[in-house]
Amino acid sequence: MAAVRYELIKECSQTKARVGRLHTPHGTFETPIFMPVGTQGTVKTMTPEEVRDLGAGIILSNTYHLYLRPGSDLVREAGGLHRFMNWPHGILTDSGGYQVFSLGPLRKITEEGVEFKSHIDGSKHFFTPEKSIQIQMDLGADIIMAFDECPPHPSEYDYVKKSLEMTTRWAKRCQAAHTREDQALFGITQGGMYADLRRESAARLVELDFPGYAIGGLSVGEPKPLMYEMLEATVPELPKEKARYLMGVGSPDALLEGVARGVDMFDCVLPTRVARNGLAFTTHGKVVIRNARYARDFERLDPECGCYTCQNYSRAYLRHLYKAEEILVYRLLTIHNLHILLKMMKEARKAIEEDRFLQFKREFLDKYGQEMDHS
Amino acid sequence: MAAVRYELIKECSQTKARVGRLHTPHGTFETPIFMPVGTQGTVKTMTPEEVRDLGAGIILSNTYHLYLRPGSDLVREAGGLHRFMNWPHGILTDSGGYQVFSLGPLRKITEEGVEFKSHIDGSKHFFTPEKSIQIQMDLGADIIMAFDECPPHPSEYDYVKKSLEMTTRWAKRCQAAHTREDQALFGITQGGMYADLRRESAARLVELDFPGYAIGGLSVGEPKPLMYEMLEATVPELPKEKARYLMGVGSPDALLEGVARGVDMFDCVLPTRVARNGLAFTTHGKVVIRNARYARDFERLDPECGCYTCQNYSRAYLRHLYKAEEILVYRLLTIHNLHILLKMMKEARKAIEEDRFLQFKREFLDKYGQEMDHS
Repeated sequence: MAAVRYELIKECSQTKARVGRLHTPHGTFETPIFMPVGTQGTVKTMTPEEVRDLGAGIILSNTYHLYLRPGSDLVREAGGLHRFMNWPHGILTDSGGYQVFSLGPLRKITEEGVEFKSHIDGSKHFFTPEKSIQIQMDLGADIIMAFDECPPHPSEYDYVKKSLEMTTRWAKRCQAAHTREDQALFGITQGGMYADLRRESAARLVELDFPGYAIGGLSVGEPKPLMYEMLEATVPELPKEKARYLMGVGSPDALLEGVARGVDMFDCVLPTRVARNGLAFTTHGKVVIRNARYARDFERLDPECGCYTCQNYSRAYLRHLYKAEEILVYRLLTIHNLHILLKMMKEARKAIEEDRFLQFKREFLDKYGQEMDHS
Repeated sequence: MAAVRYELIKECSQTKARVGRLHTPHGTFETPIFMPVGTQGTVKTMTPEEVRDLGAGIILSNTYHLYLRPGSDLVREAGGLHRFMNWPHGILTDSGGYQVFSLGPLRKITEEGVEFKSHIDGSKHFFTPEKSIQIQMDLGADIIMAFDECPPHPSEYDYVKKSLEMTTRWAKRCQAAHTREDQALFGITQGGMYADLRRESAARLVELDFPGYAIGGLSVGEPKPLMYEMLEATVPELPKEKARYLMGVGSPDALLEGVARGVDMFDCVLPTRVARNGLAFTTHGKVVIRNARYARDFERLDPECGCYTCQNYSRAYLRHLYKAEEILVYRLLTIHNLHILLKMMKEARKAIEEDRFLQFKREFLDKYGQEMDHS
């Protein structure tokens, strides 16, 4: 039996949404699922127990960041990332591709791999598909990702076409380099904002028979409708019996639209990053907690929310902590934002199971669209 | 019955150490006790539940800081500080005196009170004893402090003498201004580093019959032996049946030396502040977690400690988080340092009850003195 296996449970009759189970060596997780991001081996501000209590079963961590600091050899010596960070549940590591490419002028791409400079100390490094896989085997996540090129948006058709061909060749090299049987290696489809290239990339990777497929190169600055169009081009090319993972998406609306288009897994720094900037997702839209209107607002952040933050603190107190730059507020808003997203995904799963997902999505987004705060 | 009452339980036969109970409207706390500091209405990085779970029964918060931000009127509107910050246990507020005086050249002292400039926006403010009490009544702590002048160290004899006389007059004005019956107003003895002035200050305040007495103006940069000498001059002047509170002391050795000299209550930012600078108190001395020697040290921070941090994380992981400036490490070291101090105080109480405090103190400090890290 494969280390990681996707099991399809139920399909929506009106959309491509589906409920499934992702079986991994560190637990079985219901999909569609949102994976909080723990870039440097910690979901920022949170203990692992808190992340788990919010309902997260699997988190994402970053190959690029952990390779540079503390070093993947050190994590291996520590017994792997699960043990190092005290998280006995699922972990997915990205390949470092996205971080390496988003460094821009600091990198140089060849067929062999990518030379880049560390954002920490400027030191030079060279990532190849083989090197990315070696690092990810050292880290020991349950799901690891192929090393891909993620073209910026916008990119010319010809560039994207050549890029996806190289990404396909790299995907094969990743497969050849991957030897750990307790991990699954997922492929990453690319294709920029060109539907035919999206289809082509998916078809080429499906030929390589990965146990799961990511949709990469989206949520890179394009308008959301264009992202949905690209999803619609990609997902139908992917096999039903494998998990589908949309990388870098975490706003409530994009999550539900992704689910509607057949995506099973998502990750994004958005809910945790905006929390540290004082922005809360609520059932009625966004709340910017620093705003003066909340100074004497002794109501809870989101009256319909049952999270720890909303059960115990007023907007006025949260605003006070934010203005005073108190660490507690970063925790409290992170708890809230993760709770909102993880609960939304749970409700989405239930709605799919009960074949009322389209109605659930419409109601959720209608409410969420009535934003309390547009700043 | 008074709102706050000290009950003497047991005296040490070899030192002035004693065990008692402090009864307040928000709980009864065994003394000697260490009070964690929540300067701006939050014990930095921690939830109230976490602070409570570590064994803290009463915390200190700051009149000066809360007056400036968010404003004591706002806290009153929120239902008082207990409710605002979600801490249903004991709270003590200082009078703002220490903060106002430590602003240095930004302030102007007269018999009426002190003019000072906000450290936040430079705005001018005027604190009088009456104003300090009004703010503290708005905040609603269980124990509030008289507004005093805290002379810097070193100060001339004549200056300190005049200052303590004014502090005594201010103490009377505080008593006259204080009308909330659910709070206790403690006096603050001063006297600089002059034993006769310490005795005089204590005697003058005892005449005013406060329900408890603080020893102020210590731990301001003087050598520890001098501080102990000043404690020895002050404490015997204070009535046995009232609580004694040494302000601003929080290192393990000074706490135990204070207990030995008859002090019941302590507060200090030290354990929480140094935690955020990567310094841990352990049973074998201080550990500076950023040091390279811990990079591949997969042992726990303090093998003899049972706190959450020591149960779950290695020094290598803590060092990684610290180097990566991850908020979680500030939490984990705060948890550890508070655990160490609160547990030490609990063990000190038990040792006094069993009349073996001197032995306990010697053993604890012998071990603590074998520092693992002297940097």
